[in-house]
Amino acid sequence: MDFLTIVGAVLAIGAILGGNMLEGGHIGSLLQLTAGVIVLGGTIGAIMVQTPLPIFLRSLKLVIWTIFPPRLAQNEAIEKIVNWSNIARKEGLLGLEPLTESEPEPFSRKGLQLLVDGSEPETIRSILEVELDSQEHMDTQAAKVYEGMGGYSPTIGIIGAVMGLIHVMNNLADPSKLGSGIAVAFVATIYGVGAANIFFLPLGNKLKSYIHKQSKFREMIIEGIIAIAEGENPRNIETKLNGYML
Amino acid sequence: MDFLTIVGAVLAIGAILGGNMLEGGHIGSLLQLTAGVIVLGGTIGAIMVQTPLPIFLRSLKLVIWTIFPPRLAQNEAIEKIVNWSNIARKEGLLGLEPLTESEPEPFSRKGLQLLVDGSEPETIRSILEVELDSQEHMDTQAAKVYEGMGGYSPTIGIIGAVMGLIHVMNNLADPSKLGSGIAVAFVATIYGVGAANIFFLPLGNKLKSYIHKQSKFREMIIEGIIAIAEGENPRNIETKLNGYML
Amino acid sequence: MDFLTIVGAVLAIGAILGGNMLEGGHIGSLLQLTAGVIVLGGTIGAIMVQTPLPIFLRSLKLVIWTIFPPRLAQNEAIEKIVNWSNIARKEGLLGLEPLTESEPEPFSRKGLQLLVDGSEPETIRSILEVELDSQEHMDTQAAKVYEGMGGYSPTIGIIGAVMGLIHVMNNLADPSKLGSGIAVAFVATIYGVGAANIFFLPLGNKLKSYIHKQSKFREMIIEGIIAIAEGENPRNIETKLNGYML
Amino acid sequence: MDFLTIVGAVLAIGAILGGNMLEGGHIGSLLQLTAGVIVLGGTIGAIMVQTPLPIFLRSLKLVIWTIFPPRLAQNEAIEKIVNWSNIARKEGLLGLEPLTESEPEPFSRKGLQLLVDGSEPETIRSILEVELDSQEHMDTQAAKVYEGMGGYSPTIGIIGAVMGLIHVMNNLADPSKLGSGIAVAFVATIYGVGAANIFFLPLGNKLKSYIHKQSKFREMIIEGIIAIAEGENPRNIETKLNGYML
Amino acid sequence: MDFLTIVGAVLAIGAILGGNMLEGGHIGSLLQLTAGVIVLGGTIGAIMVQTPLPIFLRSLKLVIWTIFPPRLAQNEAIEKIVNWSNIARKEGLLGLEPLTESEPEPFSRKGLQLLVDGSEPETIRSILEVELDSQEHMDTQAAKVYEGMGGYSPTIGIIGAVMGLIHVMNNLADPSKLGSGIAVAFVATIYGVGAANIFFLPLGNKLKSYIHKQSKFREMIIEGIIAIAEGENPRNIETKLNGYML
Repeated sequence: MDFLTIVGAVLAIGAILGGNMLEGGHIGSLLQLTAGVIVLGGTIGAIMVQTPLPIFLRSLKLVIWTIFPPRLAQNEAIEKIVNWSNIARKEGLLGLEPLTESEPEPFSRKGLQLLVDGSEPETIRSILEVELDSQEHMDTQAAKVYEGMGGYSPTIGIIGAVMGLIHVMNNLADPSKLGSGIAVAFVATIYGVGAANIFFLPLGNKLKSYIHKQSKFREMIIEGIIAIAEGENPRNIETKLNGYML
Repeated sequence: MDFLTIVGAVLAIGAILGGNMLEGGHIGSLLQLTAGVIVLGGTIGAIMVQTPLPIFLRSLKLVIWTIFPPRLAQNEAIEKIVNWSNIARKEGLLGLEPLTESEPEPFSRKGLQLLVDGSEPETIRSILEVELDSQEHMDTQAAKVYEGMGGYSPTIGIIGAVMGLIHVMNNLADPSKLGSGIAVAFVATIYGVGAANIFFLPLGNKLKSYIHKQSKFREMIIEGIIAIAEGENPRNIETKLNGYML
Repeated sequence: MDFLTIVGAVLAIGAILGGNMLEGGHIGSLLQLTAGVIVLGGTIGAIMVQTPLPIFLRSLKLVIWTIFPPRLAQNEAIEKIVNWSNIARKEGLLGLEPLTESEPEPFSRKGLQLLVDGSEPETIRSILEVELDSQEHMDTQAAKVYEGMGGYSPTIGIIGAVMGLIHVMNNLADPSKLGSGIAVAFVATIYGVGAANIFFLPLGNKLKSYIHKQSKFREMIIEGIIAIAEGENPRNIETKLNGYML
Repeated sequence: MDFLTIVGAVLAIGAILGGNMLEGGHIGSLLQLTAGVIVLGGTIGAIMVQTPLPIFLRSLKLVIWTIFPPRLAQNEAIEKIVNWSNIARKEGLLGLEPLTESEPEPFSRKGLQLLVDGSEPETIRSILEVELDSQEHMDTQAAKVYEGMGGYSPTIGIIGAVMGLIHVMNNLADPSKLGSGIAVAFVATIYGVGAANIFFLPLGNKLKSYIHKQSKFREMIIEGIIAIAEGENPRNIETKLNGYML
Repeated sequence: MDFLTIVGAVLAIGAILGGNMLEGGHIGSLLQLTAGVIVLGGTIGAIMVQTPLPIFLRSLKLVIWTIFPPRLAQNEAIEKIVNWSNIARKEGLLGLEPLTESEPEPFSRKGLQLLVDGSEPETIRSILEVELDSQEHMDTQAAKVYEGMGGYSPTIGIIGAVMGLIHVMNNLADPSKLGSGIAVAFVATIYGVGAANIFFLPLGNKLKSYIHKQSKFREMIIEGIIAIAEGENPRNIETKLNGYML
């Protein structure tokens, strides 16, 4: 579990609201339905126009990674691969057949299956890399949904603020309301800039980190499986895979 | 059909106008002919200066993809290619000749024709990749027309706003009109920023997604056709093509 | 001739000035010598500091492409190359000698000369690619002169505006001139932002489109000449070159 | 030790505070707890949301490089490698075994070990490059933590300023406090922009310089070890490694 | 000598100051010690924090290139290389030995030395390319010092302006000083934006042009020396090298 995401969000919001209270501001003056409707509705609308449906759905699913990242146990995986390579050395590639069905992780299972089928190393690499690249591209697009929202929300916030100012300007006759009108208008800016900088952009970047990590993990799996297919010795495989730092 | 484009646009505009009404603003104060003329005319003019005619025309044609994206049925295509590879195995590459004429998709048809002609795998790849790259470049340029408009419209909006402010400043003598003058000037900003963030940039990005998807689809076709030319076995071809996720 | 450049410029300027008039502004209030001196002088000065002389001169020459783009007739060129390949098949590469002198386009002529000299395909490719890359780099640098001006002119406009505001601030004692002083200051912003967004950036981008097109055209020529040197059959050459879309 | 980091920070802060005093400002008016809480808390919170824990910890450790950079003595290293290559020529690769254990630097030790094991040059290169790339990626991510903070702190500063302005606007009734209220609000902007431009961004960039330098150093080590494995002559190795400028 | 650098700087500053005078402003109101201290000190301080010492020193040395660029005579160099290739053809590579010592340019001398030593073409290429890349990287980093200053100076200018405004706000009681106080504050913005757009960014870009030109020149030298090592005929070498346009 990635505690930093929650700690960070709490810290950032706490600092901003706490600072506001230290200055003598009321939290109430920062709570405003209309600003929320404009910024959230506008941002989500814009990102929907931007994103094809499958990527939009993937982005909803992926956001959970920012708190529960995908489990990628490097040491376990290396142990597993070295074990496979020992079996392949002793019993031939066909000796891996029983392990194929029991392998829980789909990507490794596909690799094992290709080994058992006796495919050429270059064929295995090309099949697995196409899969890795496709998945990585899909996930990166999904992460960019949050980046995109981080790009749109400040400008939508500015639209909200300017609309508020227009409203104020049309009622200049009543100067007593001027100040509070401007204050209300400014809240949209805070919502837009705050949502982008505390949520959308950081979440998108955290997703990218985990996507990169997963791709590295799969590259390691590919490297290991190719090495088995080429009959490299288990000790070398271990040395090489240990070089990966996820 | 890509419903998200329409849902998103309606949501964004609804949220912004709804927020405006919640605040007590009149929609009327956001409707302004001059701001529309400046922002739309200026933006379209700038993009015309920027874009060669064939790309400009392609961008007009391509925008329909944002609602009716190109149909790229992966499973059907894989089935078709596996079928071709079975025919080629049994009857030789010449057995594909009758299929060539009946193939509806031009890109696949060109590939089939090259197979039937007995071209070398490397020749087929290079011919088809030149075509893919050329088409992708053309379409990407067309998508950048919308990106470009998303870049120009906010600054043109600012030009409109500053011109409005200049007009106001020249009539400071009559302070009763000050507020409404400024309000009118601000509308150009909203038009420019809004058009960029709700239409131009998101539409450009959605186009890029579909262009990328089409290129991936064609890469898959190329991979399949090359594999047939190299006489790979149909099961391997299927495994490999299934790795593509569009 | 590229009509879009002129149509776009007229449309953009017309929309902005027309919008200004619709709002009741006088064109006179947008015409200001000092703002013009600051923005134009400052922008040209900055780009001179940035650019080596040969690139600066090339950029002056290249701007004409935005209205009269280089003539790159794909079909004619393909026909010509297929014709060469037929001659080479019948009479050997030396049969191309008479065509070499009469070939009007220098890049093709150089390629033909290398063919007649009997150079290796790889040598021909490397010599022609060095030339293509050098020319493309030079021209791209020249196009970036306009991009650079589009980057500098808005900030120079802001310098002009701030200087105007300083002037106004120093004369706050006479409030009757406040408004018109600010108005005058704002004109520099309009000049800077307008010049960048209607001329400099779009012109730079249009140049880049034509530079890319020319490079593609030359890549096609190289591909054709290499194919002749490798003795490929004319029909394949035609198929391949037709894949290029300029 | 990198004195420039300290000299630069002192110079920048001194110039800004000194300029403030020259203008007749009090340092006191720039010291404000609430602005500090908002900018620092918000920025650290945002970067925590963005960064996975291992990279966050690495960034804390790496910041010391900006004052005490990693020691990378090129001449010594070249001497060492030339010495190894002489030993390998005279006594064979096994002659390097005693040096392996005494080699203090882990990266070189791993390379030596691979030499002594008699691995193929391509295997050595691939194992060491995986390690180099993984370490470089990790460190670059850590450097981007500071870059990210440099991106967030100005916008968080703006949030602080706008909140301050909202507070001011809600108390327009008491104009005597207007000025000092706005002044207080502006301090958050200075904190955000200042922290980004004097600390976060420059520190991130300095880290990147040292990370690049370390990678270059390791590339040089790899090049030398591969050359030994390929039995190249010591003089050539020296010439080649001297071409690296770190 | 690159006159354009000086002409451009004079033109830009002249246009800005001239425009100021046309508007009726006094140059005196733009001259301000405190703004200068803040912008210059802050910018130099920030760039020192960012840059390792060797790159900082290199950037001080390199700035002279913007007026006296490195002399890179293409025709002379091609003549020289063709001459070398003729000697190598007649007397063998050892015939180049006497020229090695008298060759004034260190990069060419290193190449000649490698030819005389009878190194393999691939070894020569790899040794010279490592040197070229290292030098190019170092110089590019040095050019980025100016780019970095161009990034920091406008924001430091804004810090100066905001500090000035804070000072003004704290003295609202005396409105007669309001205007001139704001005017003084704005000068820091002009210094920051002006320095970036007239000096730092353009100088950094001009340096990059010359660095690129030098690298191209050296690539040409490498190409020529490799061609001699491969025994290519002098006429082909000349044709190829003439394709380079620096």
